[in-house]
Amino acid sequence: MPHYSAPLRDHLFCLYELFDFDGHTALPGFEAFSRDVIEAVLEQSGRFASEVLLPLNRSADEEGARFSQGTVTTPKGFREAYRALVDGGWPSLSCNPEDGGQGMPHMINFLFEEMMNAACLSFGLFPGLNRGAYVAMSRHGNAAQRALYAPRLASGEWAGAMCLTEAHCGTDLGLMRTRAEPQDDGSYAITGTKIFISAGEHDLTPNIVYLVLARLPDAPKGTKGISLFVVPKVLVDQDGALGARNGVSCGAIEQKMGMHASPTCVMNFDAATGWLMGEPHQGLKAMFAMMNTERIAVGIQGLAIAEASYQNAVNYARQRLQGRAPRGAQNPTAPADPIIVHPDVRRMLLTQKALIEGARMLALWAAQMLDVSEHHADPGMRKSADDFVQLMTPVVKAFLTDTGSDVANIGMQVLGGHGFVRANGQEQFVRDVRVTQIYEGTNGIQSADLLGRKVLHLGLFDVFARPVAAFISANEGNDALAEFVAPLAAAHDLLEDATATIQQRAAANADEVGSGAVDYMRLFALTALSYLWARAAEVSLPKSNDGFHRAKLATARFFMQRILPQTAALHAIIVAGADPVMELDEAMF
Amino acid sequence: MPHYSAPLRDHLFCLYELFDFDGHTALPGFEAFSRDVIEAVLEQSGRFASEVLLPLNRSADEEGARFSQGTVTTPKGFREAYRALVDGGWPSLSCNPEDGGQGMPHMINFLFEEMMNAACLSFGLFPGLNRGAYVAMSRHGNAAQRALYAPRLASGEWAGAMCLTEAHCGTDLGLMRTRAEPQDDGSYAITGTKIFISAGEHDLTPNIVYLVLARLPDAPKGTKGISLFVVPKVLVDQDGALGARNGVSCGAIEQKMGMHASPTCVMNFDAATGWLMGEPHQGLKAMFAMMNTERIAVGIQGLAIAEASYQNAVNYARQRLQGRAPRGAQNPTAPADPIIVHPDVRRMLLTQKALIEGARMLALWAAQMLDVSEHHADPGMRKSADDFVQLMTPVVKAFLTDTGSDVANIGMQVLGGHGFVRANGQEQFVRDVRVTQIYEGTNGIQSADLLGRKVLHLGLFDVFARPVAAFISANEGNDALAEFVAPLAAAHDLLEDATATIQQRAAANADEVGSGAVDYMRLFALTALSYLWARAAEVSLPKSNDGFHRAKLATARFFMQRILPQTAALHAIIVAGADPVMELDEAMF
Repeated sequence: MPHYSAPLRDHLFCLYELFDFDGHTALPGFEAFSRDVIEAVLEQSGRFASEVLLPLNRSADEEGARFSQGTVTTPKGFREAYRALVDGGWPSLSCNPEDGGQGMPHMINFLFEEMMNAACLSFGLFPGLNRGAYVAMSRHGNAAQRALYAPRLASGEWAGAMCLTEAHCGTDLGLMRTRAEPQDDGSYAITGTKIFISAGEHDLTPNIVYLVLARLPDAPKGTKGISLFVVPKVLVDQDGALGARNGVSCGAIEQKMGMHASPTCVMNFDAATGWLMGEPHQGLKAMFAMMNTERIAVGIQGLAIAEASYQNAVNYARQRLQGRAPRGAQNPTAPADPIIVHPDVRRMLLTQKALIEGARMLALWAAQMLDVSEHHADPGMRKSADDFVQLMTPVVKAFLTDTGSDVANIGMQVLGGHGFVRANGQEQFVRDVRVTQIYEGTNGIQSADLLGRKVLHLGLFDVFARPVAAFISANEGNDALAEFVAPLAAAHDLLEDATATIQQRAAANADEVGSGAVDYMRLFALTALSYLWARAAEVSLPKSNDGFHRAKLATARFFMQRILPQTAALHAIIVAGADPVMELDEAMF
Repeated sequence: MPHYSAPLRDHLFCLYELFDFDGHTALPGFEAFSRDVIEAVLEQSGRFASEVLLPLNRSADEEGARFSQGTVTTPKGFREAYRALVDGGWPSLSCNPEDGGQGMPHMINFLFEEMMNAACLSFGLFPGLNRGAYVAMSRHGNAAQRALYAPRLASGEWAGAMCLTEAHCGTDLGLMRTRAEPQDDGSYAITGTKIFISAGEHDLTPNIVYLVLARLPDAPKGTKGISLFVVPKVLVDQDGALGARNGVSCGAIEQKMGMHASPTCVMNFDAATGWLMGEPHQGLKAMFAMMNTERIAVGIQGLAIAEASYQNAVNYARQRLQGRAPRGAQNPTAPADPIIVHPDVRRMLLTQKALIEGARMLALWAAQMLDVSEHHADPGMRKSADDFVQLMTPVVKAFLTDTGSDVANIGMQVLGGHGFVRANGQEQFVRDVRVTQIYEGTNGIQSADLLGRKVLHLGLFDVFARPVAAFISANEGNDALAEFVAPLAAAHDLLEDATATIQQRAAANADEVGSGAVDYMRLFALTALSYLWARAAEVSLPKSNDGFHRAKLATARFFMQRILPQTAALHAIIVAGADPVMELDEAMF
């Protein structure tokens, strides 16, 4: 069975050595989170992941969520684990104290989510959805709605589910058909069918709070005619006492490649009673206002599976004896050397390690700015932090989930045939993580959002480029750091040139943005990682008398020399432009 | 349900426009295979794939092979399909006429296998294993063994299975423990347990012919002490009449990520009666002598799934309506445009198309040389063709199976959430094709074979570089072709430089080969594809008044401008060398 042990040393490196978490707790509301408190929370998070969730992951995959006559039964152990999750207060880590939450930084909650999802991604999706529903409710619910729902979503007493997609509309929500008819009592009758609803029905909580997008009768066409409604599975009174079942039911669950224990539901709304949240026709805006947190969280899912795959690949590579090291037997008394001695196996493991640790730095950088955007006393600081989050969110979502799949596939390759069989768990990582590249907006959509909206339309590129350029120029002439700063500067030049080139061409050719977006996202992400690896190296150089920091430097060198060169190819592909993408006659595909 | 239609137009392009198949049939033994015959064979192949095999693919995945008390039951429809396969004479296409085979070129048999595997890979593996056993038997069996087994393997009356791997030895066969004790009657008693034996047990044929690697009592240690034995599941007399069950049985089948309908067996040999094939202790050499055909065939499996994924992604992209083209509505009377109008969707489909058609050219180039190596009247031509096959086989195996996985994952991404659910088949392509990167020698092993053995040890690089350099210099000053030849020349320079750099360093540092091998394989493959795409463009330029050849040119441009730039990154990564791979303290992984 797969093993998992929370990478706490690297978490603490990121928090305290790279991102000055002690300084971060000077933000209003974070004063209580001393290092002692944080270390205790992270240790308990790791124990919860390894001891409560990890033992469920394989059996839950085999058993899957089961559907029968409108009900969904989660796999053996999920109900008990969910109870332990709620009893431990884990769902409310980053929720607001006024809703009974613990008010912790997003940085800490994301590290908890990394551990939870590494141990059992299909379980982790349930509280992930609660958190999404909580954020939407706390921002867009009216006072009565907030009072009723927010504390119960924060604690996990009730679960949440987001109902957007319909059979004919996923990416293009403007085509939505679900309708909301006003009723005399101020409520709405919601009618329509939603698909791909994660955790749309299950047996973990006595109630599920659906946030549903639907059209009012007078709604304008397209995306500007969509409103947001709260629809409880079980109708409740003002005190939250459960009443009659509402007119919403699960019609089926999907059979999928992975995430077998996470029910993906067809949800039928049949004149279900719902209440408008926020303003009419402003539903998409409300939904997108909470998307940054959700999308970073999905990126964290990719990181989590990558870490789990890596740990198990390393274990296997230490134990499996095959062949001899090219430089001579390393284990001469045994019949063969462990495969970790082979350069190609080291290459695979280092690729995993450099991407994982880089991805973690990137996610925590965005999370730190998310905290600043919500907590800083200065509105200007909040705004510039929010700009940074807007820019980096699609990068975190797309790059970390791509990395999740890439790294899990490398993990399988390290195990060879033993990776393809189910018992060793690597194949489940590959199957489970694959959907993270698709849901919460496909990575193609993330890339279009980054390039088309955030860089070209909103002009946010500089909120990333400024600190990077400052770091580069501050370290000119720093010989000790030159091996890291020089490749960073080269990558940054390529990214700036790609940005300017597309900007210039996009005005004349609308196809340039879509043709370059995915490669641009990847160029952006690798450049961001090279900046973070250079900073990690700067931190580690003076401490290189200990093994951890020497390993950071070695991994940084591997990243710079053996991963970052991809940026040259990405730049060349981007500047090749739209012509080769658009030339082929559509009939000839 | 997924669709599949054999890409016959592209097959004919490769055969007759690119590889002069009419000239190829001048080889001794191929004279009868006129264009009429070949077209009829390909058409019937395509019909067999689409009509007989395709309908089984999804249900076979859901049902899987079932194990009970030593027997394996294949999914519904497999027995009838296998009967149709044998009745149609398909297994014997490329077998020798003296064994009842049809003596067709490998080029044609590989195209048949492409179609068969695109329609149902888990079915296609059965005849694939027969063919491997047939090739080994026809080369290494003595006269009596050949007479008994070869015609029955050729026809498919009996099935074959290769028994190499043991629980503690996969890549490192020198660790093998299965032993063979000589018996008084000249036979051997084979005892040991083999794992990961594809089609080790099933219900498709009355007998299964196991080719088993085992050690004789006096065997030297390591890989030079392994002998090859033929062990029938059911003992037979000289006329092939079935007798008693031999001492071999299936102990279990693996639960796997994909290929559910293909039983992967634990095989227990309990003093099973076997006969030595070839010389004592020469078993590995005998096994490797047939590996070129088998490894190219596994590459073809990757190509097959890539093609199947592409066809279904294109279908979906034509039908699915979401959003509007950036250049304005293309389908203004409908609520949205088909997603094939979006540049990023075109980019995904073109990446699939350019890799698939390039991979097909590469496989057929190797297959043509395999035919020449076996059929040419001139021993010198046979030798140089064999050198080419030796060099290119690991490239075909590794690059085509990597491409299979990459392209299938792109296909899933085109479908978004609809690709992650089982009913649409894309996720099955991803699950099924993944093992092709692992079995028949992992792609890491293929890369080490290419660089360490074929390029550095045997010095075969020039058998590839010579025709490429000749093509480049022949087309100097050809303005019409310059847009294809210039990037080819640049890639070829990078490959030559990478080859020389590693060659120089490998003498001093044994870790250089393993550190660079996988990236080198990919650089080699992309350079080979750029050569073939340039040749395809040369063929197509004068015919660009028709849609097919215009599409070839557009796809060649896409390859050159949007895929080939990866070579710059691969070169940079290779010349970064072993230091960044080897620096990290092993304890710090």
